[in-house]
Amino acid sequence: MLRTHNCGELNIKHINQEVALSGWVQRSRDLGGMTFIDLRDRYGITQLAFNMETQPELCLQARKLGREYVIQVHGKVAERESKNLKIATGDIEIIVGEFKLLNASKTPPFTIENETDGGEEIRMKYRYLDLRRNPLKENLLLRNKLSFEVRSYLHGIDFVEVETPYLIKSTPEGARDFVVPSRMNPGTFYALPQSPQTFKQLLMVSGYDRYYQLVKCFRDEDLRADRQPEFTQIDCEMSFIEQEDILTTFEGLTSHLFLKVKGIELGSFPRMQYDDAMRLYGSDKPDIRFGMPFVELNDLAQNKGFSIFDEAELVVGFCAKGAASFTRKDLDGLTEWVRRPQIGAKGMVYVKYNEDGSLKSSVDKFYSEADLKLWAERMEATPGDLMLILSGGVDKIRKALGELRLEMGNRLNLRNRSTYAPLWVVDFPLLEWDEDSQRYHAMHHPFTSPKPNEMHLLDTDPGKVHANAYDLVINGVEIGGGSIRIFDKDVQARMFSLLGFSDEDAKSQFGFLMNAFEYGAPPHGGIALGFDRLVAMFGGSDSIRDYIAFPKNNSGQDVMIASPSIISEAQLKELNLEVKIQN
Amino acid sequence: MLRTHNCGELNIKHINQEVALSGWVQRSRDLGGMTFIDLRDRYGITQLAFNMETQPELCLQARKLGREYVIQVHGKVAERESKNLKIATGDIEIIVGEFKLLNASKTPPFTIENETDGGEEIRMKYRYLDLRRNPLKENLLLRNKLSFEVRSYLHGIDFVEVETPYLIKSTPEGARDFVVPSRMNPGTFYALPQSPQTFKQLLMVSGYDRYYQLVKCFRDEDLRADRQPEFTQIDCEMSFIEQEDILTTFEGLTSHLFLKVKGIELGSFPRMQYDDAMRLYGSDKPDIRFGMPFVELNDLAQNKGFSIFDEAELVVGFCAKGAASFTRKDLDGLTEWVRRPQIGAKGMVYVKYNEDGSLKSSVDKFYSEADLKLWAERMEATPGDLMLILSGGVDKIRKALGELRLEMGNRLNLRNRSTYAPLWVVDFPLLEWDEDSQRYHAMHHPFTSPKPNEMHLLDTDPGKVHANAYDLVINGVEIGGGSIRIFDKDVQARMFSLLGFSDEDAKSQFGFLMNAFEYGAPPHGGIALGFDRLVAMFGGSDSIRDYIAFPKNNSGQDVMIASPSIISEAQLKELNLEVKIQN
Repeated sequence: MLRTHNCGELNIKHINQEVALSGWVQRSRDLGGMTFIDLRDRYGITQLAFNMETQPELCLQARKLGREYVIQVHGKVAERESKNLKIATGDIEIIVGEFKLLNASKTPPFTIENETDGGEEIRMKYRYLDLRRNPLKENLLLRNKLSFEVRSYLHGIDFVEVETPYLIKSTPEGARDFVVPSRMNPGTFYALPQSPQTFKQLLMVSGYDRYYQLVKCFRDEDLRADRQPEFTQIDCEMSFIEQEDILTTFEGLTSHLFLKVKGIELGSFPRMQYDDAMRLYGSDKPDIRFGMPFVELNDLAQNKGFSIFDEAELVVGFCAKGAASFTRKDLDGLTEWVRRPQIGAKGMVYVKYNEDGSLKSSVDKFYSEADLKLWAERMEATPGDLMLILSGGVDKIRKALGELRLEMGNRLNLRNRSTYAPLWVVDFPLLEWDEDSQRYHAMHHPFTSPKPNEMHLLDTDPGKVHANAYDLVINGVEIGGGSIRIFDKDVQARMFSLLGFSDEDAKSQFGFLMNAFEYGAPPHGGIALGFDRLVAMFGGSDSIRDYIAFPKNNSGQDVMIASPSIISEAQLKELNLEVKIQN
Repeated sequence: MLRTHNCGELNIKHINQEVALSGWVQRSRDLGGMTFIDLRDRYGITQLAFNMETQPELCLQARKLGREYVIQVHGKVAERESKNLKIATGDIEIIVGEFKLLNASKTPPFTIENETDGGEEIRMKYRYLDLRRNPLKENLLLRNKLSFEVRSYLHGIDFVEVETPYLIKSTPEGARDFVVPSRMNPGTFYALPQSPQTFKQLLMVSGYDRYYQLVKCFRDEDLRADRQPEFTQIDCEMSFIEQEDILTTFEGLTSHLFLKVKGIELGSFPRMQYDDAMRLYGSDKPDIRFGMPFVELNDLAQNKGFSIFDEAELVVGFCAKGAASFTRKDLDGLTEWVRRPQIGAKGMVYVKYNEDGSLKSSVDKFYSEADLKLWAERMEATPGDLMLILSGGVDKIRKALGELRLEMGNRLNLRNRSTYAPLWVVDFPLLEWDEDSQRYHAMHHPFTSPKPNEMHLLDTDPGKVHANAYDLVINGVEIGGGSIRIFDKDVQARMFSLLGFSDEDAKSQFGFLMNAFEYGAPPHGGIALGFDRLVAMFGGSDSIRDYIAFPKNNSGQDVMIASPSIISEAQLKELNLEVKIQN
């Protein structure tokens, strides 16, 4: 070892000990008689002291050390004159007796500080330097802590981690696959897994009872800020259970993580039906850190001469507590905001419940104060509140109002990053109609079981069938989702047929699973949690990229290693491929 | 939950409790008055009892249950009349009150028993059924236990698990890459990692100090019985260390695993230099569960008129203790054995040291008993022993004699599967000359550091330079290997040049690493252990395939899911590819 201790552990108890430390020069201060160097490693920072009077030569050498130089020092631990309470080693310093330069450093292209001067692009190119900065280091250490705790918890309740294969089979259902040409089997391809879904179900058929895996998954989709072509999933499956058992088990896991890593007791997680979530919050992942549920006003607001409301399928609003103080300018701004194409509302109606008990709205021409009072009553508004109302087609306007609700949450500072409000959204629809392809798609995936008591609707009105499917939502972010699976071959075949698979396609794609169901498949279900997103949530951020050691940019490139890149003609030939760029 | 207990936990303490169990019908026995069913799940087997007299209807239904049917039962725990000491639940049975058929099963294509009647091919196709069998289940549970213990141990000594990317860059050095076409970057490809080597070194440059990862790696090589295109590695790296620290740390991990999982104390691991391993055992991974080191005889055996020895570069043999009883037939058989093309010796000389003190050899024509006595002395042979001697070119004959030594170990039952003899082989050569390409190849990989005191030979005699490289060998199996890395840009550049890289190639392939070395790279080194092989060794087997849930066959195919497979024209077009099968 090139050290006896690390840079984060020496304290007053070590005084007078001879120690060796190794690390990076974080900064140096030359005070004439003394030169101080902050030596950094993963564990912390320790101050090194060089005395110009007693050790002039050593001190002169030390002054030549630049930022990020790597050195090894031997010296004696001494109590500092002026202590630094901010760091664990702040009581002591090392009176250096000798040091050795292990490696020099060019001046980094940006400062290795908590707040750096480097832009996104240069930091991605020099990711190995960016990873030296405390914020990123803390993120990766948090990730490590969380993955270890996830495994400990699941291991402790008899889950078995089983590694499923990465070179699997391309299937057309779902997102686009990344494929891998097979050299040994000319003209054929493996696919990288979008999830180990079918394999974990097979493991249930095999009797493994409780499976988990922290596993990389791959989707060749166009990228957004919070999406990566490769991402990590906490993938789980259980047998001989019902939905309630899954919810309890993974509520347990989530609570354990919050308690262990953040010291937060979450209490029991509320549950909300999908239909209620859409009706009350316009979202299948409502942020319930704050209220403002939707209130429908059709019966009160229609047929009063305001044609926009009269013609709308739905008139719906919410009450923003204490927001009557919003100025005309604020409200005009909000109206502009909801009109943006991303939100897509045509306009917004507001009603201010003034502190003096009077009501003032943007539609006073059509509604009397008595009318508005009825609205206020239904919305449980009281003096000082602001009511915001949108109208239009049901689905579209709920979505728009949902966005407005989140925006008001932001403006009223109701979305506190240190508050965590978990929620189970349950009873998702089994199918959703896709206008483009004019067929039903699986809302979760084709292996999700219909609610047994709605099975009869599969023939007559499949869109109305709900599923034993559930999402775990925290603070408006979907952390994971899962379902109770179909375990009967006939139901699975019927499902494939509803999704537009021919018998032949179903057999060639998923024949192995349907065969497996013929040999004693147990009732089973599971869940997958997005690990990148979970870590980001624990870190208090929306950006998963800061929690991944070597992420890709929005073009799917790793600019540090310059990948993807062209490969040689010889490689292509061996793989029986030709590149032919489409125009 | 569809059960109150699992099938492995009920015992005499539970008598008279009402319980619910779920599982698979392992077998049923109909004894007229009583029907017994063995119900199986992951945790064990519990006997169910149905009484024809008291519950005729239930009993008749139970008799219809076939093997591998999935059922749920409710009943009362009762003491068995005839106990089964072989299983944990053998003291009790369940007097079934009601049962529910959860799923039926076709007759499996092979029996779900420890010894099955299914051939390899059918068991691979129905892997989900094969995985139900106890031996495979135990293998996967062992794997889970080992991976958990590996993580616990490394986590406990401050190693951080960091996930490195799977979509990386193709490099020509090493084995063949699997590649992944990039849709978003037409004409370019990612590669799947053969190991996270460069990323873990970058993490050291980033200051992460101690990294580990249980990680899938990929190699597109022609497959053999113990090779898979995707395999799992325990990948580790440490900073500010020397070779001794790595050996100590991973000796610690290995000892921990043997103690924790097998209850075996390994003691401290011997070390052997590569040159000695080759000289004494003809192998860089000697099996030291038994002795029989090589003894060189050139000075004693040459110039006595036996032209085969006279013309040989090396005359070398070993003494097989107590094997003088081998018959002429045995010895002829051994001679045939060493002449097989896989071994490649031209012939074999034997000398029997008979119990009566006389010596009898296959070359009595050329050597007197006094000559042979000198051989025996050098080989420390005593009456009752057998000496076996080969001759030829140094490298080839050492290898052949190494194989013969292992074969004799087998025949003399010296390679006991329940004995574990770990060994560090150290000081590997840095380079090996490749006749085909007429250039040096890196023996470990291009990032391995030369021994500092042999650095000067790099220019004059590179083949003589040793490396700070080491392998962990257990019972003659290479479990892992690693090295202290180059951390100086100039040395790395020199190494690339020795390996035949042009400056341009080195820069385009590994420029990011060489750049990283300019910004304060710490001294570092690491190791990677083959996890599949480690698990197989713990399981007492040579075949890694039995320790992988869903392995591929020797053609790289998963016959269960029928992969790899063709993909659609539309997919190919999106990827800017055409398949053109080479003739």
